[in-house]
Amino acid sequence: MDIGYIAPISGLIALVFAGALVYYVSKKPQGTQKMKEISDYIHRGALAFLKEEYKIISVFVVAVVIILLITSYFTDLPWETSIAFVVGAVFSALAGNIGMRIATKANARAAEASKKSMSGGLTVAFSSGAVMGLSVVGLGILGVSIFYFVYGSNAANILFGFGFGASSIALFARVGGGIYTKSADIGADLVGKVEENIPEDDPRNPAVIADNVGDNVGDVAGMGADLFESYVDSIISGMSLGLILSVFGKYGVVYPMLVAALGIFSSLVAMVFVRAKNPYTALRNGLFGASIIFAVLAFVVTYLLLNDLNPFYAILVGLADGVIIGLSTEYFTSHQRKPARKIAEAAQTGAATNILEGLSTGMLSTVIPIIATAVAMVLAFEFANFYGVALAAIGMLSTLGISLATDCYGPVADNAAGISEMAELGEEIRKRTEELDAVGNTTAAMGKGFAIGSAAITALALIFTFVKRAEALNITMNMSLTSPYLMAGLFIGGMLPFVFSALTLGAVGRAAEKMVNEVRRQFKEYKILEGKGKPDYERCVRIATKGALREMILPSLLAVIVPVVVGVWKIEALVGLLAGATATGFLLAIFLANAGGAWDNAKKYIEEGNFGGKGSFAHKAAVVGDTVGDPCKDTSGPSLNILIKLMSIVSLVFLPLFISI
Amino acid sequence: MDIGYIAPISGLIALVFAGALVYYVSKKPQGTQKMKEISDYIHRGALAFLKEEYKIISVFVVAVVIILLITSYFTDLPWETSIAFVVGAVFSALAGNIGMRIATKANARAAEASKKSMSGGLTVAFSSGAVMGLSVVGLGILGVSIFYFVYGSNAANILFGFGFGASSIALFARVGGGIYTKSADIGADLVGKVEENIPEDDPRNPAVIADNVGDNVGDVAGMGADLFESYVDSIISGMSLGLILSVFGKYGVVYPMLVAALGIFSSLVAMVFVRAKNPYTALRNGLFGASIIFAVLAFVVTYLLLNDLNPFYAILVGLADGVIIGLSTEYFTSHQRKPARKIAEAAQTGAATNILEGLSTGMLSTVIPIIATAVAMVLAFEFANFYGVALAAIGMLSTLGISLATDCYGPVADNAAGISEMAELGEEIRKRTEELDAVGNTTAAMGKGFAIGSAAITALALIFTFVKRAEALNITMNMSLTSPYLMAGLFIGGMLPFVFSALTLGAVGRAAEKMVNEVRRQFKEYKILEGKGKPDYERCVRIATKGALREMILPSLLAVIVPVVVGVWKIEALVGLLAGATATGFLLAIFLANAGGAWDNAKKYIEEGNFGGKGSFAHKAAVVGDTVGDPCKDTSGPSLNILIKLMSIVSLVFLPLFISI
Repeated sequence: MDIGYIAPISGLIALVFAGALVYYVSKKPQGTQKMKEISDYIHRGALAFLKEEYKIISVFVVAVVIILLITSYFTDLPWETSIAFVVGAVFSALAGNIGMRIATKANARAAEASKKSMSGGLTVAFSSGAVMGLSVVGLGILGVSIFYFVYGSNAANILFGFGFGASSIALFARVGGGIYTKSADIGADLVGKVEENIPEDDPRNPAVIADNVGDNVGDVAGMGADLFESYVDSIISGMSLGLILSVFGKYGVVYPMLVAALGIFSSLVAMVFVRAKNPYTALRNGLFGASIIFAVLAFVVTYLLLNDLNPFYAILVGLADGVIIGLSTEYFTSHQRKPARKIAEAAQTGAATNILEGLSTGMLSTVIPIIATAVAMVLAFEFANFYGVALAAIGMLSTLGISLATDCYGPVADNAAGISEMAELGEEIRKRTEELDAVGNTTAAMGKGFAIGSAAITALALIFTFVKRAEALNITMNMSLTSPYLMAGLFIGGMLPFVFSALTLGAVGRAAEKMVNEVRRQFKEYKILEGKGKPDYERCVRIATKGALREMILPSLLAVIVPVVVGVWKIEALVGLLAGATATGFLLAIFLANAGGAWDNAKKYIEEGNFGGKGSFAHKAAVVGDTVGDPCKDTSGPSLNILIKLMSIVSLVFLPLFISI
Repeated sequence: MDIGYIAPISGLIALVFAGALVYYVSKKPQGTQKMKEISDYIHRGALAFLKEEYKIISVFVVAVVIILLITSYFTDLPWETSIAFVVGAVFSALAGNIGMRIATKANARAAEASKKSMSGGLTVAFSSGAVMGLSVVGLGILGVSIFYFVYGSNAANILFGFGFGASSIALFARVGGGIYTKSADIGADLVGKVEENIPEDDPRNPAVIADNVGDNVGDVAGMGADLFESYVDSIISGMSLGLILSVFGKYGVVYPMLVAALGIFSSLVAMVFVRAKNPYTALRNGLFGASIIFAVLAFVVTYLLLNDLNPFYAILVGLADGVIIGLSTEYFTSHQRKPARKIAEAAQTGAATNILEGLSTGMLSTVIPIIATAVAMVLAFEFANFYGVALAAIGMLSTLGISLATDCYGPVADNAAGISEMAELGEEIRKRTEELDAVGNTTAAMGKGFAIGSAAITALALIFTFVKRAEALNITMNMSLTSPYLMAGLFIGGMLPFVFSALTLGAVGRAAEKMVNEVRRQFKEYKILEGKGKPDYERCVRIATKGALREMILPSLLAVIVPVVVGVWKIEALVGLLAGATATGFLLAIFLANAGGAWDNAKKYIEEGNFGGKGSFAHKAAVVGDTVGDPCKDTSGPSLNILIKLMSIVSLVFLPLFISI
């Protein structure tokens, strides 16, 4: 039997497990009528957003398929690329859909389970996160495997379409989801908390459901699609480089898939470790357990199969890079560490010093991830050439099954805490769910760092794949930095993340304004706070949906069109563009995510009673920082992950077009 | 006679003119005793800062000379490089010293001249700015010429030392000056305006003199040293590329100097145009006049001398790039344009939305400068190869004599307005000087954009010089983007501007805190506001001086040491580092400068009576934005100009070291 069959088998097993967890979570009691009602609102709101989003994506997908088919007709682009594109888009959407369905079903169930014990709530929330994690890796590897078994080694050329499909979904999910979540959040907070002085998650706030939907849309569907993209892109670039560089004979192409399969097995085994009194310890045990099991499996398989441990070392380097970036993120954003506390301290002299300290912290926090990734790239190259760089990306993403489960646990716990508040489950339950939520915030911050890091290393692997593929096609180009075209591309590429961030920041502002007006209108016209009328949640959900989808189109098109235009002009300029965009995209993403996270936790630190506590002068200043940081860390920052990967994969897909011109 | 003699002659003429203007300004009446007293405080404070700064710089210069001599002993580095280094440092310091002496003498005189008419005040302020402008270009070209006439074509190899010397002064002047000006400004404002509710420039505020000194230290000395560096670096890189590429026979090396000389003549002639009822029109006429005269002269000389107009076109491209960047800066920061007004509008919903809108505006404002510079680089290359890129830089900086005069006019007008306020010259004089100041703000913003743009194109010319020189020395290196070492360098280089900005932002915060405490102490202990005691200006000046000088050391050393360490490791990594640092340095500098400028002018727009005017909710929010923007635009942003040029010139100087290892 072809050893490659292990890959689809691992995918199927992951999906079977995901199915079992869906069953397990669905069977859990949903609690009181009120809880059920709120959960249903969120569930329906989230699905309504997905449905509208799919409509826009369908138009995009059809347009791209037409363009791909025309390109295939006139150039050497294999026509199967369009099929791969559609399958990639459908698989990514499917994974996101499954994950979001179960996440929005699990929230009330996690709150209900918390009535018994905190670990009960943890199990439900984590299980629903695991559905997302396993769906992503299962569908990801299954999709890649299908093409591998149908087209053999040639699949490596077709699969870029698969990556492109996954990227497209990720783009809309991240940008649209990011705009949705923050416009709802800011709208709910500015009118509810600030103007009317009612608590967060107060059911009288018309935007409260949209806010909870947003957590799922942004942090579950957006994050899932983002990492689905990284996951499949890293495997595809490994397969492609294995083919181009003809390494390890017949195993060069299949080895990346096998490594990914080992990661899936490790994640599945490690999921049993996720049980401990302390939820943070539980999740950490799971993550570390998976990494250790994976390292052992990868060592054994690499040694037996390739009889050369260098690829294993490259994988290990990627794994280590991911851990270092996660720890660095944790240090720079946690409210138990110096940086966030210094930001809180600076809030004592006002909003301006609070903002400046946050900006400075965010900028400084780029050092460790950048150096770690640069070193990882060089080491991986030393171990196994460009193939090694792709393996490092695969290594970092190998245990995605469980790490994504940990990420997606966060929004479920957040929603559970919200439901406890809205359904008035009483002090103790609320405390338990809030503690689960707090752990979720930490894992979410680390997950964000991990998502950025994996996007950067994946983008690097894709750029190298692009160059090697262009070389293999005998294209003469001056890839040297002495080419002014390449340098011009570098400058313009470096600029794109700035423009992209400016657009997404502006989008949140515009969408939030509409939400603010709507919430104000409802409070006034329906006399909700006077106890006379009821809030119209659905209207707010519709406004958030419409705003997000309208605003996501311009930045999204930019990301797809620019590389094609530049590539048609000059390939070396395109290479410069990709390198520049990856470098500044990586930097800006970390800066925005960590500054935002640190402002958020500085505020939380003050709310714990430091520097005057809630309502103090420092607290008001910290709220300004938190509001500034929100769209930075949840919209603009994460969207950059997609930008850098998408531009690389688009370049790879359209390479035959650039050549033929 | 060697045609090259035109260069030192132009330099001497510029210096003679500068001397005449010094005489002219000094002869103007200084006004009342009170005005004289305040002006003297500022003058002495500024010189005290320079003196302390020189002490630190001396240590640095001696250390570098020792390192250079050791390197010369063991490698092929010409030992004359150390001489060039010292001369470059001394000339830059001299230009800064002259400019600052006269600027701090001219402030009261400009206020006094405004008693007669606004154009009287304009003439005095502009004349003192012209002293700085002409000193910079005069000493710059004279220094380069001396080496050219002593060492002939070989000067091109020695002159990197001259550039390094100029860079070193610029580094300390920009970083130290930037920290000084903003710590004094924030200290004066936070306690005076915000806490005690006394007007800006109130003589009872102990930090008011330090604040006025800061304007000169930062915007005169810092800006002058920055542009001195760009000016000489661009000429040096042109000469070096002329030598390496052996273009235009015997004229290849001398042509860049000639072009610079033409620029000096044009600036001198155009200075007579600086007279009109409206000060803005007057300054603009001067700038455009100089550009037109220069273009005509350059056309004629190029045609007659080289019989090939391509170098002229490259120069023109650079000139156009500078104009475009200036206009773009004006658009994104002026309070008469949409972006700043939208930021003011966003202030109505609070500080957070004001900050977000400013961040978004700053990011978006990178588009035009980046594209213009990328296009200019490609066109200049098409016209005259790498030599053309250096010529574009020279073209952009050709009319520096007058454009720097316009920049340095700003702080003099600002000080004049301050003195009018402090010496109670009455409503009308204050209005006149404030109008002069307002024009100064616009020219200062455009000057900032110009300084950034010229730094970027100069850095590009230096990078190409570095690569070509390395190639000429037969170094084998993989300069392709497929080198993971180069890519790692690119990432780490891209990170440096973020770290540098984080350090300088943090430095301002720490230094400002000390100032705040001192001002609070004086108000309390001396009972100044109760009319009992007098403020101790000198103590505040000392605190600002000490704080700035202490804080400038770490970022400065970083900028010098990192390229040397990376270069010793791997030259291709260094090339990546330089390219990455230039790209993100350029981007971040524009982002920080324009966001800061736009916040500043959004506040001014509100103060004009819009959105509630002074004291309104929107105004309070806009003050937060302005305070955040202050160190962004006056410290961190401008310091990046130096960082990117300095790292390139350091690499060029130490290239023989990297080779020999």
